[in-house]
Amino acid sequence: MTPIALDRLITLISKLPGIGKKSASRIVYHILDGESTYARILAEELTALHQSIFRCGICGGFTETDPCPICSDPNRDHSVICVIERAQDLRIIEESREFNGVFHVLGGLIAPLEGISPGNLAIGTLLARLGGPACRDRVREIILALNPTVEGDTTALYLQKILKDFPVEVTRLASGLPVGGDLEYTDRLTISRSFRGRVKV
Amino acid sequence: MTPIALDRLITLISKLPGIGKKSASRIVYHILDGESTYARILAEELTALHQSIFRCGICGGFTETDPCPICSDPNRDHSVICVIERAQDLRIIEESREFNGVFHVLGGLIAPLEGISPGNLAIGTLLARLGGPACRDRVREIILALNPTVEGDTTALYLQKILKDFPVEVTRLASGLPVGGDLEYTDRLTISRSFRGRVKV
Repeated sequence: MTPIALDRLITLISKLPGIGKKSASRIVYHILDGESTYARILAEELTALHQSIFRCGICGGFTETDPCPICSDPNRDHSVICVIERAQDLRIIEESREFNGVFHVLGGLIAPLEGISPGNLAIGTLLARLGGPACRDRVREIILALNPTVEGDTTALYLQKILKDFPVEVTRLASGLPVGGDLEYTDRLTISRSFRGRVKV
Repeated sequence: MTPIALDRLITLISKLPGIGKKSASRIVYHILDGESTYARILAEELTALHQSIFRCGICGGFTETDPCPICSDPNRDHSVICVIERAQDLRIIEESREFNGVFHVLGGLIAPLEGISPGNLAIGTLLARLGGPACRDRVREIILALNPTVEGDTTALYLQKILKDFPVEVTRLASGLPVGGDLEYTDRLTISRSFRGRVKV
């Protein structure tokens, strides 16, 4: 017999990705053991989340202003569009500080078994950006930053085919050994890809 | 560049136990991708948490009523008190459906290096319960359900010594091989304990 409010919160939290019943319980007791200020602020931020954050009309990333800071930044290279699966991929790429172009969120990958066809993805809006008024410069390169998975490969192939008719270069992120990785613990496919994509040193 | 509200929520959530920056980010994007109803309900439950849940005046467990449902349940055996470290241990023991007595939350374990001495624990209130008015029946057994760690052992020894002057039996949970465990992957100490605590079959 545990308080019902506790159980309700544990059930809610265990629905989050990567959190099971045990972790949820640990989290709730941690919040309960701690200052009530933390729970209050967390609740406020959660309430504000959907109110203050929406999707950018151009790239589809999460933003507090429309267009988003990246799409409206004159210092970014608007002639290079990096195509990503989900809005959260943007954060990871931004943190690498390797890319200074703009983004386009597909909103998923082609996965026929899960019923996701090209029609479900933001491909039409991507094509509209090629020379459309939303892009300041003529787009010269599209970088497909899709996961090296079956779905990622399928989507990349599809986009490659579609984009062939446009005067734009299409590239894809290199696939190979992760930095700090170990050949011994690398799977066969990754090794074969890193061979095919080997570079001159 | 990601929305500031997102970063604030990710920082908040990454303070929870077992959740790093990456998981926090995954969780926040999951909430953002989903229905706003979920975030609203989660926020409401978090706000209500500290208001509706407090500690039972008798056992120290979390409760919505004082005394808690267990302490006020006439069908439980009030002559057996199970001593636990933290309020969350109560849930795990209740789920085993093995115990029908009442509980006592110590609020920690003796750990001199961390500055936790017996004076910081709810030991005085435990002694007051032995025959005090809060317990319906005379207490005949105290089960120490403390972790089989150095701190748990120290605390168990201390309580054993203190309780020697009271007409009460003191027991401790058996320590040994976990069910479904494998000898090969069991540490030396656990094996030695399971030998010492071996039972006739």
